[in-house]
Amino acid sequence: MRYIGKKDIGKIDRSLILNAISHAYELLLDENYTMPDRIHVQDGDNTLLLMPCFESRYFATKLVSVFPGAPKLGAPAVNGIMTLADNKTGMPLAVMDGAALTAERTGAVGGLGVKLLTRENIETAGLIGAGVQGLAQVRYLLLNRRVKQVMVFNRSAETARAKVAILASEYPDVDFKVAQTSDSLVKACDLVVAATTSKTPVFSNDPELVKGKTFISVGSFRPDMQEFPDAVIETANRIFVDTPFAAKESGDLSQPLERGIVKKSQLQSFAQLVREPLSREQKDGPAFNTLFFKSVGMALFDLTVASAIYEFALKNDLGVTLDF
Amino acid sequence: MRYIGKKDIGKIDRSLILNAISHAYELLLDENYTMPDRIHVQDGDNTLLLMPCFESRYFATKLVSVFPGAPKLGAPAVNGIMTLADNKTGMPLAVMDGAALTAERTGAVGGLGVKLLTRENIETAGLIGAGVQGLAQVRYLLLNRRVKQVMVFNRSAETARAKVAILASEYPDVDFKVAQTSDSLVKACDLVVAATTSKTPVFSNDPELVKGKTFISVGSFRPDMQEFPDAVIETANRIFVDTPFAAKESGDLSQPLERGIVKKSQLQSFAQLVREPLSREQKDGPAFNTLFFKSVGMALFDLTVASAIYEFALKNDLGVTLDF
Repeated sequence: MRYIGKKDIGKIDRSLILNAISHAYELLLDENYTMPDRIHVQDGDNTLLLMPCFESRYFATKLVSVFPGAPKLGAPAVNGIMTLADNKTGMPLAVMDGAALTAERTGAVGGLGVKLLTRENIETAGLIGAGVQGLAQVRYLLLNRRVKQVMVFNRSAETARAKVAILASEYPDVDFKVAQTSDSLVKACDLVVAATTSKTPVFSNDPELVKGKTFISVGSFRPDMQEFPDAVIETANRIFVDTPFAAKESGDLSQPLERGIVKKSQLQSFAQLVREPLSREQKDGPAFNTLFFKSVGMALFDLTVASAIYEFALKNDLGVTLDF
Repeated sequence: MRYIGKKDIGKIDRSLILNAISHAYELLLDENYTMPDRIHVQDGDNTLLLMPCFESRYFATKLVSVFPGAPKLGAPAVNGIMTLADNKTGMPLAVMDGAALTAERTGAVGGLGVKLLTRENIETAGLIGAGVQGLAQVRYLLLNRRVKQVMVFNRSAETARAKVAILASEYPDVDFKVAQTSDSLVKACDLVVAATTSKTPVFSNDPELVKGKTFISVGSFRPDMQEFPDAVIETANRIFVDTPFAAKESGDLSQPLERGIVKKSQLQSFAQLVREPLSREQKDGPAFNTLFFKSVGMALFDLTVASAIYEFALKNDLGVTLDF
């Protein structure tokens, strides 16, 4: 068995993680997996989430704990451990840092959205929410589109500045800017990615502001969270979701659905795009002018990403070998 | 975070594991824990069991996979990983070899049964089922009672001989013998411990054979498994169970209950014995002449044992430190 920590997870080629997400969508389309509903265990204010998933070669369980009071004790609220095993012999293969894995897989889910939804020649992109997840979103965005400018908005401008400094050192040829307001960011960008847990929309509910742009939401994983104003979903020519249960899980879908702003039949499976990508003509045409992609994630993503990380670690002798 | 493998788990003083099991019974009596039902995930013939549990200082999840076809591929059918975390901050503390942990905790559950149910001067003990669990049963038995002779019976005599050789080298002052038949073992022994997954009783259904002895069953964790013939439960003056759901889970209880041989009201909680042990007079008296203890185990045992192993590893700098 092998332990693969944050540092080693960071060494893997992002294109391999991106491929792993494509592979997850293929498995989803072929119904070639076993994935029970996420299991919630409640202990007072704290939650333990158990996310098992099986495909033919591997199976995995991600364990995520959410301790709302932990930051007061100097610890992160969310912690995770991923376990990967061989689905022929049942033998454990790897234990991984679950938070690092989650950041990569969520980055890649957003990145694949960028790849399959935006025109190749977009020049400006914006990130709203500059946490760990946001950083990963920008990295996978830049893997797929070498935009000239990336604007970053965060509730705390200080956090935005700190993340811009990190990104600027990693991508010296890209112009990173802290946006003064979220509206100015949306106005200036062809693509807007949000990675927040906001309970109220993070910019103005204005159809004129959002028209002609691509919106990707990877935050808002609960019904009481909504990142984008209704104008986005209302204006979008197409609405894509990564999983059938996203409509229940995220307020970015459940709230406009409840208000009757969209119908469930308007939600399209993102997976289908992986098999039949949009043509350049489609992307340039009016029918795909304004696009919205909502991802809530699923254990199947974690499984294929963990498999890719494991295979990369094996090949490059990364991680710590543990006697088992 | 720390990885604690089989070798390091083997280094911990068994008395500490025994104390951890006592502590689990105390928590059970005080209802000072959160333990949801064991979670079963089925993928074809294979099963993944998820066993989370919380107490005030720690929480843990044991992941156990059961792959019935794995032995054909040269792998064990059962594999396990234990994860332990801090229940104040949520921070992961340790990952452990789940199979090694399970063997120790099941050994200690049996061993505490030996300690609290048998007279101090018993001279002979028998083990039926000489697998990994059986070995642990004998070690914890000998921690509590220095009997003169231990008889071992196994379906395959070769396995019995191999295990007897291991035990003889560990305990040179004890006389280990392979029993020719299970009946001869029961006849010769004051105490009989069974650790099998047998679906049919492993010795004759004869009240005369079982009278005046102590029986401990740590195998038979499913309703279709029964280790002991009905004569044991029928003859026993007292029947102890480790958990309230044992009556449903094990055929050693559910089958005699179904056949009307015993009533559910006759089953007593073993936990109470931890707080109020039998006196020497009680153990010598006729009311406690024939005893039966059935254990199916629970996540709370795993949690307290993992905590004890972790604290021991920390103090003695055992295991591998992992960057997290």
